[in-house]
Amino acid sequence: MQGNFSYYNPTKLYFGKSSLENLNAELPKYGKNVQLIYGGGSIKKIGLYDDVIRILKDNGKTIVEDPGVMPNPTVDKLREGVKIARDNNVDFILAVGGGSVCDYAKAVSVSVHTTEDPWDKYYIRFEEPDCPIVPVGCVLTMAGTGSEMNGGAVITNHEAKLKIGHVFGPEVMPRFSVMDPEYTYSLPVRQMVAGIYDIFNHICEQYFSGEDDNVSDYLAEALMRSVIKSSRDAVKDPYNYEARSNIMWAATWALNTLIAKGKTTDWMVHMIGQAVGAYTDATHGMTLAAVSLPYYRYIMPWGVKKFKRFAIEVWDIDPTGKSAEEIASEGLEAMRGWMEEIGVSLNISELGATSDMIEGMADATIILDGGYKVLTRDEVINILKDSL
Amino acid sequence: MQGNFSYYNPTKLYFGKSSLENLNAELPKYGKNVQLIYGGGSIKKIGLYDDVIRILKDNGKTIVEDPGVMPNPTVDKLREGVKIARDNNVDFILAVGGGSVCDYAKAVSVSVHTTEDPWDKYYIRFEEPDCPIVPVGCVLTMAGTGSEMNGGAVITNHEAKLKIGHVFGPEVMPRFSVMDPEYTYSLPVRQMVAGIYDIFNHICEQYFSGEDDNVSDYLAEALMRSVIKSSRDAVKDPYNYEARSNIMWAATWALNTLIAKGKTTDWMVHMIGQAVGAYTDATHGMTLAAVSLPYYRYIMPWGVKKFKRFAIEVWDIDPTGKSAEEIASEGLEAMRGWMEEIGVSLNISELGATSDMIEGMADATIILDGGYKVLTRDEVINILKDSL
Repeated sequence: MQGNFSYYNPTKLYFGKSSLENLNAELPKYGKNVQLIYGGGSIKKIGLYDDVIRILKDNGKTIVEDPGVMPNPTVDKLREGVKIARDNNVDFILAVGGGSVCDYAKAVSVSVHTTEDPWDKYYIRFEEPDCPIVPVGCVLTMAGTGSEMNGGAVITNHEAKLKIGHVFGPEVMPRFSVMDPEYTYSLPVRQMVAGIYDIFNHICEQYFSGEDDNVSDYLAEALMRSVIKSSRDAVKDPYNYEARSNIMWAATWALNTLIAKGKTTDWMVHMIGQAVGAYTDATHGMTLAAVSLPYYRYIMPWGVKKFKRFAIEVWDIDPTGKSAEEIASEGLEAMRGWMEEIGVSLNISELGATSDMIEGMADATIILDGGYKVLTRDEVINILKDSL
Repeated sequence: MQGNFSYYNPTKLYFGKSSLENLNAELPKYGKNVQLIYGGGSIKKIGLYDDVIRILKDNGKTIVEDPGVMPNPTVDKLREGVKIARDNNVDFILAVGGGSVCDYAKAVSVSVHTTEDPWDKYYIRFEEPDCPIVPVGCVLTMAGTGSEMNGGAVITNHEAKLKIGHVFGPEVMPRFSVMDPEYTYSLPVRQMVAGIYDIFNHICEQYFSGEDDNVSDYLAEALMRSVIKSSRDAVKDPYNYEARSNIMWAATWALNTLIAKGKTTDWMVHMIGQAVGAYTDATHGMTLAAVSLPYYRYIMPWGVKKFKRFAIEVWDIDPTGKSAEEIASEGLEAMRGWMEEIGVSLNISELGATSDMIEGMADATIILDGGYKVLTRDEVINILKDSL
């Protein structure tokens, strides 16, 4: 385990069928005024909205609704949510939905009691909260982002054409999350597989860094193998509880800081994908899928040892009589085959990107180090062109 | 992921070289009177004792020493520790040592403010604490038990010839643990490998249950592969930081409730091993090593599918042209080879057990379900005889 680190993740998880009833154990710990955050209303179709309202009322809460959180929550919506929280003296935020709803809830939670503009403070200056944070609980309806057990909150600014994630510390993590895999059944298959790819790429982004061989590398491989197996079962039968529950659980552990321990991490696929998202408003997981292979093929020569290991340990490539580069390439080819099989986007054109957006997307790409190669702007442009 | 479960593990971990200095961030959160618990004095040899005293004094604490915790902490020692805590109005317990020291600290923490006898309450009646719990922090000097991030507390009663573990809930888990892998360098190799086997068997005991294929199974395999790899490096060179740090980190995740999620778990090796420990006072990890192969060979036919998977995924056994039983047996044989290689005990005779103790050990063995086969007393006797 390279370097020094701390691990602290105090989110309590309630997992399984009918786990929503655990809200009754959690709600009494918080104040009376609850901001109920959700998205486009799919929670009403599956009866979850009614169940949540019933439990909130049973617990004597005053409910302030904040619906309409979009797939890529905007800074305008964030400012609206902050106003709702302030106007109603909100004591607790309950997010019911997918990763976007949870992300948005956390962004609101750190902005209610600050006098500064949240976009400037958290997404331009990347400051940490120095004000009281309104506690957040989540009821998760989609597997993918890991937002249910981390401090991440991605916000999009359409005016500035920027989609930026701030990963806050443990104090911003949800106090609890309810994870009933059956809620994810209602999701269209395209959303399900986008979520699955999001999970897979979260793992890649922590795995493809460093030449080391530490516990996190083994855990990352385990999560990848599990996600690959379960994704195939879930695509065949979206009502396969075992598959959907494994995917949901893997998503949480793919991005709750555990497998980043001892790693430098390489978040460039997210950085490029988010720039694509800012221009196209495409589904997050699909933007990652569409840029990831061009990115990994490009950086592979700088990290060939790890890509070889990936091929053998994750994709069962037989290394006999092959060079490291050949093995590594076969691994990426197997990954492409799986992506095609589950049906994620393999290019950004089908997400609405056009060649005239490339320069702007490159400008919107935040270049991070931590990976095998620190990209130049020209390299980002080439990767985006390869992704068209 | 089978069944419903919750996950909540609020222990904060500080990992890496010189991580002891993080005590300065933690100590101010707790009261003035600190019970300093440690073992036989090895922490004095490595200079850790002086460092801890310095930091406690810098933070204005009143120190009450409670040294002499033995490898298998006894109920007599526990009662003594409780008296020390009561007599000195202890606000916080700092455990500096290995798993036994941490276990003992937790047992004291739940016993200070109860009027009942802790052995009867927690180890005979298995009740949960209904009194205030004194917060515990740990500075870990040995990798193995996982006690630094769980609620487990094993106590031995020599008079009753019983060694019993109570796994308490999250409220009893250490508030924080300091994990500096360099502290483990001072450990004799025999203690190091006993700890390594303890880790490995914790993983086995969660893995060998259920026929399912859930995330926990993949994570368990990852931890086993990592431990096998690092143990070989550490036996060659006990000062290999990468190996020792991986072992320390794997130990924590092997027994902090994560890989038990969705599993029924089978703790019979611990149950039989603890009975051997109660009679011989042998090192915990060695008692597990000495009884595990006879146990796993015996139950294999009832769980052959999982033992086959274990052989292929953990030990890289080539399954071509072999029956499930053959593959499974080759896996256990590979495990035996590794145990021999790192030098753990392969029989209980060398730990001081004699055939006249077998009946008593069988009586001291708590029979649990959860595994592939619920043992009878006669089967326990046969396994113990095979272990001689």
